[in-house]
Amino acid sequence: MTPDDLKALVRTVPGFPKPGILFRDITTLIAHGEGLRSSVDALANLANGLGASAVAGIEARGFIFGTALALELGMGFIPLRKPGKLPVATLHEDYALEYGTARLELDPTLVNADERVLLVDDLLATGGTAIAAATLLRRAGAVVDHALFVIDLPELAGRTALEDHGLATHAVMAFDGH
Amino acid sequence: MTPDDLKALVRTVPGFPKPGILFRDITTLIAHGEGLRSSVDALANLANGLGASAVAGIEARGFIFGTALALELGMGFIPLRKPGKLPVATLHEDYALEYGTARLELDPTLVNADERVLLVDDLLATGGTAIAAATLLRRAGAVVDHALFVIDLPELAGRTALEDHGLATHAVMAFDGH
Repeated sequence: MTPDDLKALVRTVPGFPKPGILFRDITTLIAHGEGLRSSVDALANLANGLGASAVAGIEARGFIFGTALALELGMGFIPLRKPGKLPVATLHEDYALEYGTARLELDPTLVNADERVLLVDDLLATGGTAIAAATLLRRAGAVVDHALFVIDLPELAGRTALEDHGLATHAVMAFDGH
Repeated sequence: MTPDDLKALVRTVPGFPKPGILFRDITTLIAHGEGLRSSVDALANLANGLGASAVAGIEARGFIFGTALALELGMGFIPLRKPGKLPVATLHEDYALEYGTARLELDPTLVNADERVLLVDDLLATGGTAIAAATLLRRAGAVVDHALFVIDLPELAGRTALEDHGLATHAVMAFDGH
C-alpha cells in the first residue's frame, strides 16, 4: 500500500465537531484491514532506532494505534486515560484542546524509572494533548522525547509546540487545512 | 507465559467504581509486554475457525484488545463508540450497565452486508454492553454470533445473557466474584 493509498483511506468530514474544522477521521482507515496493517507498519518504521522500551497512548483513539504499535514492537502499552477510569491513585494534567478543555490521568506505577516511552496518538493538531501526556509520563519518571502520530496537521504548528516541550514529532502522513 | 502467569498480571481493586465491586483491571496486563502479547495470542487462538472477516471493539478498553486482535488476524477494526465521537450519521443503542446506563454509536457504513464480525471487549460482566454492541452491528447488516473477552466473571452470568441473544462467549480467563 503506497503512502497515497493509505492517505486516501482517511475520511475528511467538514464542520465536525464545530464549523470551520475539517475533521480527519481515521475510522475508515482502521476498518480497512490492509490500511490498519500498513499504518501500524509505518508507525513501527518511525519508531525504529528511537530506543524506547514502552509505548503510551491517549484515550481513546490513541489506544488503537498505541496498542498496535506496542504489540508490533514487543513492548508494553501504558494508557493515558480520561478522568475517573483508573481504579487506583493517579497523576493528572489539565490542558486546553483546539475545542474545549480536558484532563488526562496516569497510573504512575506503570512507568519504570528512567524508561524511555514513545507517545502515540492518531492526530497532531495544536499539540496540547500530547504535551499534557508527556508531562504526566515525565512526572512518573519516564524519559519522553519522541511523539508518533498517524496524521499531522502542519498548519496548526503542533510540531513547533512539541519541540518547545522537548518532543520530536514523527508522523505517517500530513494534511493541509485544519 | 502460562495461563496462571497471565491471570496474575490482572490487578484486582476492591470497591471500584463502587462498594462491593471487585474491579478486575487489565491496565497492569497490557503494560507488560509479554502479557500483552500472550493475551492477544490467546484471543487469536479463540478466534481461530470462527469464520469472521472483521473485528469490532467497544470504547475504550475494547479498542485495546480489538485493534490488536484485528491486526493479528489481518482484518479491519470497527469501533463502537461513546456518544458524539463519530463525525458522521450513526446508529445508536442505549443499555444498562452493572453501574449506570450508557449509549454506543456505530457508523453503519463501516460494516459490509452479511459480513461476520467478531465482537471483542476486555471483560464480560452482565453482558449488557456486548448485547447492545451486537444489536448495533446486526442493524448495520453484520452477522454477529461470537463474542471474545479477555476476562469472564461467571458469577454475573453474562454468558447465559449473551446466549439468549445468539452470541457464543469465548474468554481467555475467568475470575470468581464480581
